[in-house]
Amino acid sequence: MSDIRTLALQCRDAALQLGRLSTQARGDLLQAMAAALEADAPAILAANDKDLQAARDKGVGTAMLDRLALNPSRLAGVANALREVAALPDPVGEVTRDYVRPNGIRVQKVRVPLGVIAMIYEARPNVTADAAALCIKAGNGVILRGGSEAIHSNTAIAASLRRALREAGLAEAALTLVEDLRRETMLELLQLNDVIDLAIPRGGEGLIRFVAEHARVPVIKHYKGVCHLFVDDSADIDLAIGLLVDGKVSRPAACNSLETLLVHEAIAARFLPAAAQALRERGVELRGDVATRAVLPDVLAATEDDYAAEYLDLILAIRIVPDLQAAIAHIQQYTSDHTEVIATGTPAHGQAFVQALRSAVVMVNASSRFSDGGELGLGAEIGISTTRLHSYGPMGLEALTVERFVVQGEGQVRHPLG
Amino acid sequence: MSDIRTLALQCRDAALQLGRLSTQARGDLLQAMAAALEADAPAILAANDKDLQAARDKGVGTAMLDRLALNPSRLAGVANALREVAALPDPVGEVTRDYVRPNGIRVQKVRVPLGVIAMIYEARPNVTADAAALCIKAGNGVILRGGSEAIHSNTAIAASLRRALREAGLAEAALTLVEDLRRETMLELLQLNDVIDLAIPRGGEGLIRFVAEHARVPVIKHYKGVCHLFVDDSADIDLAIGLLVDGKVSRPAACNSLETLLVHEAIAARFLPAAAQALRERGVELRGDVATRAVLPDVLAATEDDYAAEYLDLILAIRIVPDLQAAIAHIQQYTSDHTEVIATGTPAHGQAFVQALRSAVVMVNASSRFSDGGELGLGAEIGISTTRLHSYGPMGLEALTVERFVVQGEGQVRHPLG
Repeated sequence: MSDIRTLALQCRDAALQLGRLSTQARGDLLQAMAAALEADAPAILAANDKDLQAARDKGVGTAMLDRLALNPSRLAGVANALREVAALPDPVGEVTRDYVRPNGIRVQKVRVPLGVIAMIYEARPNVTADAAALCIKAGNGVILRGGSEAIHSNTAIAASLRRALREAGLAEAALTLVEDLRRETMLELLQLNDVIDLAIPRGGEGLIRFVAEHARVPVIKHYKGVCHLFVDDSADIDLAIGLLVDGKVSRPAACNSLETLLVHEAIAARFLPAAAQALRERGVELRGDVATRAVLPDVLAATEDDYAAEYLDLILAIRIVPDLQAAIAHIQQYTSDHTEVIATGTPAHGQAFVQALRSAVVMVNASSRFSDGGELGLGAEIGISTTRLHSYGPMGLEALTVERFVVQGEGQVRHPLG
Repeated sequence: MSDIRTLALQCRDAALQLGRLSTQARGDLLQAMAAALEADAPAILAANDKDLQAARDKGVGTAMLDRLALNPSRLAGVANALREVAALPDPVGEVTRDYVRPNGIRVQKVRVPLGVIAMIYEARPNVTADAAALCIKAGNGVILRGGSEAIHSNTAIAASLRRALREAGLAEAALTLVEDLRRETMLELLQLNDVIDLAIPRGGEGLIRFVAEHARVPVIKHYKGVCHLFVDDSADIDLAIGLLVDGKVSRPAACNSLETLLVHEAIAARFLPAAAQALRERGVELRGDVATRAVLPDVLAATEDDYAAEYLDLILAIRIVPDLQAAIAHIQQYTSDHTEVIATGTPAHGQAFVQALRSAVVMVNASSRFSDGGELGLGAEIGISTTRLHSYGPMGLEALTVERFVVQGEGQVRHPLG
């Protein structure tokens, strides 16, 4: 048997044990993991220094170095995040349906852990702790396969978390870090569909496509967020500018940032000049269609590619549309199924926008930046799914469980003996 | 662009239209489909005759011929099944969560259709109508890929159902039958993960493994049902025999039939002779371990393979276990994640059994044969999932939808301007 298969099978057995722990015991375990991270801070920071040095030697850019870097305050943040996860409501055992059938059997739907979750990710070493905590809170085993650039940090963090498992008398294999980072080993991991219940890739589009194209295990993925704001003719102009600036400027590199602005032609002449001023004051480059450039002559021409682009940068594509239906049609063509927003003073238009679009999150008069597990009240987020199956949109603890049936009877049978 | 990709894209566009119809309109459509099947009965039965003749020419067995055969009464049953689906509660638009965040945004989770569902199935032509009805009721487009042995029947049924779509002013592509049954075309269909949201294979294990191993689209599958009954030492003997006979004999070819009986050693001497008599009267062959054969000397010896077998026949594997924990351990080793039953007079044992096992359906003192969408109150069933993701166990209409987020605000932003 291959090494990776052995590791995965050990993780599955350990996960069964984890799923049977009480809510209290799983919470205590996460508290102990937080304490272990704090106690092991010197070793973890030393390991992180090695990764940073290697990255600098490779000439890695500052943004990447920043994602990779840990320091005492960031590490304390990671430990506190584990404590927050520990305190979240436990999804395991939640009864979501409970009814009695005419023959007297009682049917319940009850949440159980998925089983074994493989997290495949890049760069940020905090994911090692964050993702592990969420998986374990929901009673799952977790196989962590991080990037080579963070291997020393990830190994040190995993060792610390596994110490907490061991000291709680649990099998360490419930949290398994893959240290063999060869591509063929990852490919083998992604074939283990009799052991692994779900793979969640987190990182750049290249990584996610690689996982999606090679996996035989189920994958929940998120390629990109091409989020739209449509400003309806009845929108309050200040409100719309507020949503636009927050959506584009507050964190341009986030997947829930706005990439395309659609404007109803009846409001364009009033809205666009003020909107352009607010954006340009904040360094945003604008690219528009012919109609936009008639209102804002110094805007660059937008191409088809601009409407498909996830800039993740201070750039915005703009298009003027004749009406709500044209806005919906544009979004249907270019959507990444992530988040779409309408600014409108007409409730019926908001409703029509919500009805017509099937993106994971659709908002009326609220910022796309709320498309986030924490902001939507999930407590924490393991990722954002644009896969229309199981979980769609920001994924919290519930997304790491599945509902199954529990039936209680008093001897009922389907075909009673004559 | 390949033909199958073109068909799938047309189905996706048509599905958007379908998903936006009112509950009433989708219900009316299914009523019209039922009427169309009745009106087209002569053509459908003539097509079925062609399939039957071809099957007879190939020397197909009687069980297969029976699965393939339609007649006026079976066709009326299919039409009535569509009317029953039409009358089921509509899952689309259901609000499953509704809360207001501290900043005043209102967050709802609302069910939307999955999009496009590919059904891959064998033999039974009624699946063409049943599966299409469930997919359409839940607002999905459906691509049907049936077996070659039923191609004439399937084509006639699909033509009839598509006529109802056309007469309702809807795009026929919402229901697309794949008439090109080449293996490479099916492979191509299974790669369309940017168009197809879910594939559901229904048929023999070979078909399901083929789909699971070649699909890049998400698959919800069900290999087999190795369902267990554990008779605890505190079980009522008559009750346990009732569950055993119903589970093994009432329809041995069903996936929710019992395959293995586990008996607590403290009750074996009292339970097994009576159980064996009840089963043998009904033609069941018994295969047991050494301990079982000490109680029932004329039972055949069971091998490892017997405990892993889905007989789908009047054969039962038996094993005597020392206690509840050993029963759980046996089931964990051999489970197909389908359905497990305990017969017990001790509620705490029932609870421990339910807690320890993660199969899709776990029952206390009720027959495994209730592990069925209709029996569990789902109204209808499109399949039974043993994939621990999205939907686990019998799948009804809800399993053909996914929850997404709808947010209503009054201009809230994440980082208000200073």
